[in-house]
Amino acid sequence: MALRAGDRSQVAMNGLKEKVLTLDTMNPCVRRVEYAVRGPIVLRALELEQELRQGVKKPFTEVIRANIGDAQAMGQKPITFLRQVLALCVHPDLLNSPDFPEDAKRKAERILQACGGHSLGAYSVSSGIQLIREDVARYIERRDGGIPSDPNNIYLSTGASDAIVTVLKLLVAGEGPTRTGVLIPIPQYPLYSAALAELNAVQVDYYLDEERAWALDVAELRRALCQARGHCCPRALCIINPGNPTGQVQARECIEAVIRFAFEERLFLMADEVYQDNVYAEGSQFHSFKKVLTEMGPPYATQQELASFHSVSKGYMGECGFRGGYVEVVNMDPAVQQQMQKLMSVRLCPPVPGQVLLSMVVSPPAPSDPSFAQFQAERQVVLAELAAKAKLTEQVFNEAPGIRCNPVQGAMYSFPRVQLPPRAVQRAQELGLAPDMFFCMSLLEETGICVVPGSGFGQREGTYHFRMTILPPMEKLRPLLEKLSQFHAKFTREYS
Amino acid sequence: MALRAGDRSQVAMNGLKEKVLTLDTMNPCVRRVEYAVRGPIVLRALELEQELRQGVKKPFTEVIRANIGDAQAMGQKPITFLRQVLALCVHPDLLNSPDFPEDAKRKAERILQACGGHSLGAYSVSSGIQLIREDVARYIERRDGGIPSDPNNIYLSTGASDAIVTVLKLLVAGEGPTRTGVLIPIPQYPLYSAALAELNAVQVDYYLDEERAWALDVAELRRALCQARGHCCPRALCIINPGNPTGQVQARECIEAVIRFAFEERLFLMADEVYQDNVYAEGSQFHSFKKVLTEMGPPYATQQELASFHSVSKGYMGECGFRGGYVEVVNMDPAVQQQMQKLMSVRLCPPVPGQVLLSMVVSPPAPSDPSFAQFQAERQVVLAELAAKAKLTEQVFNEAPGIRCNPVQGAMYSFPRVQLPPRAVQRAQELGLAPDMFFCMSLLEETGICVVPGSGFGQREGTYHFRMTILPPMEKLRPLLEKLSQFHAKFTREYS
Repeated sequence: MALRAGDRSQVAMNGLKEKVLTLDTMNPCVRRVEYAVRGPIVLRALELEQELRQGVKKPFTEVIRANIGDAQAMGQKPITFLRQVLALCVHPDLLNSPDFPEDAKRKAERILQACGGHSLGAYSVSSGIQLIREDVARYIERRDGGIPSDPNNIYLSTGASDAIVTVLKLLVAGEGPTRTGVLIPIPQYPLYSAALAELNAVQVDYYLDEERAWALDVAELRRALCQARGHCCPRALCIINPGNPTGQVQARECIEAVIRFAFEERLFLMADEVYQDNVYAEGSQFHSFKKVLTEMGPPYATQQELASFHSVSKGYMGECGFRGGYVEVVNMDPAVQQQMQKLMSVRLCPPVPGQVLLSMVVSPPAPSDPSFAQFQAERQVVLAELAAKAKLTEQVFNEAPGIRCNPVQGAMYSFPRVQLPPRAVQRAQELGLAPDMFFCMSLLEETGICVVPGSGFGQREGTYHFRMTILPPMEKLRPLLEKLSQFHAKFTREYS
Repeated sequence: MALRAGDRSQVAMNGLKEKVLTLDTMNPCVRRVEYAVRGPIVLRALELEQELRQGVKKPFTEVIRANIGDAQAMGQKPITFLRQVLALCVHPDLLNSPDFPEDAKRKAERILQACGGHSLGAYSVSSGIQLIREDVARYIERRDGGIPSDPNNIYLSTGASDAIVTVLKLLVAGEGPTRTGVLIPIPQYPLYSAALAELNAVQVDYYLDEERAWALDVAELRRALCQARGHCCPRALCIINPGNPTGQVQARECIEAVIRFAFEERLFLMADEVYQDNVYAEGSQFHSFKKVLTEMGPPYATQQELASFHSVSKGYMGECGFRGGYVEVVNMDPAVQQQMQKLMSVRLCPPVPGQVLLSMVVSPPAPSDPSFAQFQAERQVVLAELAAKAKLTEQVFNEAPGIRCNPVQGAMYSFPRVQLPPRAVQRAQELGLAPDMFFCMSLLEETGICVVPGSGFGQREGTYHFRMTILPPMEKLRPLLEKLSQFHAKFTREYS
């Protein structure tokens, strides 16, 4: 806290100077940033883990961090082929080892050829290794049924977050009523609110429809836009599909309607598609914005500006720690694209190991390759388990009175709605906490289960939720869901 | 370019809409960003490489990219031990291989134990793996003769650049005459000017004294500060030691004077010390700001705010592509430190492979370890060669008429001053180029040598320089230096 006037003279008397950088003098935009996924609840979880290690008695033996989509932290094994290729690239002496399959060696040699000094230790060009940008373009073309993708429109990044922030940075301008507004879904992944706060842009909320499995409704987009036009200049529309934290997968007609809306209202589209491999529900299918936009033909295909984001952190590989990702831009002004490239060059390059993993993800073993069978098997196990966990989560939560959970059609989270009794809400207010934060903190203290309150993602006033990842292994997930439901029942009794 | 009124009606007639994001509507701060190290000269170098590959005839057979401090791109081999440990961490099956030394396996196991799910693929905590923060703290204590370092004041980052920008972000506030000013050396590493432009802070230039081997003079700091106080609020002072692009190593007395100045004038100190292992000149020695500050005792030791930056990209290891680094903060307001941690958490975590390499760099093999001898030998070869190259560079340039080069006491660049004949200056102006950009472009086109014009780093008006890394292997460096000197002579004749 900054010093008051009285303290200040105290400071002067002691020969102490007030610090240059204090809460009062620091960047006010940074102060406004909030990021619930790693917020106070996670700091408390870390403390509890430490207390457990120190032998402090708790009503649980283990903290389960279901707050974040971090597959490998939950025990998921890395995909063998990805790590073999990366190990070969890191330590090329291994290229002589008989313990690595031929196709892994070929991949590694191909990548090393494309690196400065044939080493991962050299900087790459700022937009990423050209060869890997080409791999990404071929992947997008396969994904989108042959629609062309130009490697020059692809920029590798330090995870998807980095690329998302870079595009937002380009969009921010103006002051007062001309300040850039950006439409984001509510509930949202809080990278968006955090980045907009830091960049001093206006966050324009549009609500997903919980009653219709978190569907996106263009009428609600229009409402949000009209309301925002009074006090800012809305210039971009962010979509998360499949949804985080909501798990919905958008229907093709919905995507078409969003594109028409963006075109008419002159909004730059940002499509966060990092969960494109994570679709589980029967009848749900991933449609990329790029594909739909292109198939809609002119003027959309030729004019609508779009940036689409992907990463190596989610999908079946879950290689979060490597911070690999990319953005593909469509119909972007070439002069602006140059500016984006310049901005990226200041940070020199995305981490090269993350680039290498991305290359594997977008060009996995082909059926004729020796690693194909194992790769496919490992991939399928992960995706099949995720589908089963998505179903189980929805089912167990919906059996609990006072909890209602939409189907987890995709991504890797459930975002159930919880009823909280009025006395709990009142108690939370006394403590200066959001009611669902109070619930989640109580849950953590009593059960060791760490989930993130819905208030960190945004929700309709008077409703309460939490986000929980479905990633824990099956044998842990069921007891976890049951424990959580039981705790909610107990909490409800306690405050009724 | 944005459309003029006439073009606009044309657009309307064709049913074309103007783009949402254009040079006119984009973030004006981003437009102002410049980053010479990867600027137009490097883009041209890339083009020339492509032309060479396509068989286009040039007066040279190879482009030599001496524009950037990228050791491994220049052929430097990675340090074996670092890559062994990293390969073991990436692909833990190798822990059973007889081909890896025991100490490398021990290190890898220790790191994997500290990773979520025992995998590099999990996110780490946002400030970096705790164990590695502790390793860094022990390293700093050894470096600084036992002065304590607290792991809680250490934050791992995506290269040093990331940490530098994060600290600058905290410092930026105010508008008009209260806008934050940041003092940076001229010549500087252009990350600083680029970040300040992007953050809309005021760049306050202080000039290093070329006549005294680029020494830092407190009188000049004072001049710059006084002048700046009229139109902004100077709140931070950046120091690069050893210097980039200038290669000077600051004397201890100079550092003391800078600290006294910062304390009196209430400036937050930012010490860019990424070249701390790169000191070559006899009589030169690296003194960390943290050590000097602490040894000066109170009030400096107890009150002066400092952030010190280091990375795995430079030194003897040169692992630029992995984007590893850290910042240590000293006397920072704990509440601000929390804000910094929050800001870092939005980007989730620094790339874990870079964290692993950093751990190796700060806790290398001990004399009793099986890998010690080889590690030391490899390290020594790199550092001895760098010292020889630093000397050679200075010597060859100073033999050339019209080129004057200060001693390269440390870091990995020379920043020689070149005389350019008035007719060359005039020709450059006709072409709309800075005179040293014209010189460097001509050099590139004629010889394939890529160096960066001094105007990209800042220099006194009417003087011209270029930055060239000393990293090329010895057998290439001498002909390179000679070719460059000869080109300068020819260029001078041509425009005289």
